[in-house]
Amino acid sequence: MLGRFIVAEGIEGVGKTTQLALMRAYLEQAGCQVVVTREPGGTALGEAIRHLLLGHRHDDMALTTETLLMFAARAEHLEQVIRPALARGDWVLCDRFTEATYAYQGGGRGLSLERIAALETWVQGQLCPDLTLLFDLPVEVGLTRAGKRGPADRFEKEDKEFFERVRAAYLKRASQYPDRYWIVDANQPVEAVWSEVESLLAAMTS
Amino acid sequence: MLGRFIVAEGIEGVGKTTQLALMRAYLEQAGCQVVVTREPGGTALGEAIRHLLLGHRHDDMALTTETLLMFAARAEHLEQVIRPALARGDWVLCDRFTEATYAYQGGGRGLSLERIAALETWVQGQLCPDLTLLFDLPVEVGLTRAGKRGPADRFEKEDKEFFERVRAAYLKRASQYPDRYWIVDANQPVEAVWSEVESLLAAMTS
Repeated sequence: MLGRFIVAEGIEGVGKTTQLALMRAYLEQAGCQVVVTREPGGTALGEAIRHLLLGHRHDDMALTTETLLMFAARAEHLEQVIRPALARGDWVLCDRFTEATYAYQGGGRGLSLERIAALETWVQGQLCPDLTLLFDLPVEVGLTRAGKRGPADRFEKEDKEFFERVRAAYLKRASQYPDRYWIVDANQPVEAVWSEVESLLAAMTS
Repeated sequence: MLGRFIVAEGIEGVGKTTQLALMRAYLEQAGCQVVVTREPGGTALGEAIRHLLLGHRHDDMALTTETLLMFAARAEHLEQVIRPALARGDWVLCDRFTEATYAYQGGGRGLSLERIAALETWVQGQLCPDLTLLFDLPVEVGLTRAGKRGPADRFEKEDKEFFERVRAAYLKRASQYPDRYWIVDANQPVEAVWSEVESLLAAMTS
């Protein structure tokens, strides 16, 4: 069976990491080769770029710079990890991808979606994830969960209104692209969330 | 007098740094406020990106990644340094700018000039240097001079054919945009090169 490219999206604290681990285990048990990766990052150079993006040494970086760095990390990730994995027939499970740029740099910070789309085409050409799982949660619940993890990075330090805009942008994109987005109610116990995700994977692997 | 944006371009070893220092001194003596800067770099974040681009830890980075990182550093440079300086009326003297992307990533590495132009517009809008000084030199002369400076960076380690393509790309761009390019014969003593550059500055400041 040919692999698929699945992305987990959502604001901080929605439980993406847990669900990605469960997804990996499920797919491997089904005999699939699975690559689990993340953005920004996923390569040595991408992780160095992530460090520039999330750290606090460059708190005042321009929005254009931030967006170009996101896509630079993405270009490397696609070239070194994602495209080769898909070419081998592996499944790729990615913690955030281009939809996060629409949500964070677009919805959150106000960059026009047209400018993001121009970079998306420049970097990805026709490549697009087969499915984006949007783990959706009220912002205050997510932030409370994320707050327990330690010091806030350059995005986590943003205020509640920022994350409300990010969440709204995600939900809007999901409603615009229902054929490749799936909204998962993440405001449930882990097992209930997983049960929903598991059904989707069962359908995709059957 | 309103400041101008002047860029020095050319392959390794053409003497840009020396000429930029002489240009700064000349302009300051003429009462101009002068900002001398460089690419990739020119800001704290830009210098961190320069480190990723020129170092050898990521020797195999994708050409798309390399180009996006160049433009990320440029976006920051424009936002934090170049646009504010021009808005103040300062002169900006920059060691390499977007023409270097056309020459190195385009001519040298083969990225299409259309893809570079798309990022140029995305990052710069209508902003373009008033004058690009192309310090031109036979490749073997430049490489011999540059070779004396110490360990080669990720670009300097390229072979002679790479720099022949870079030089040819610079010369082609200069012939296509004669209104904003000036070719300086850099295969002369420093004083003779400076005499040519000084005449240009005298015309611009008179």
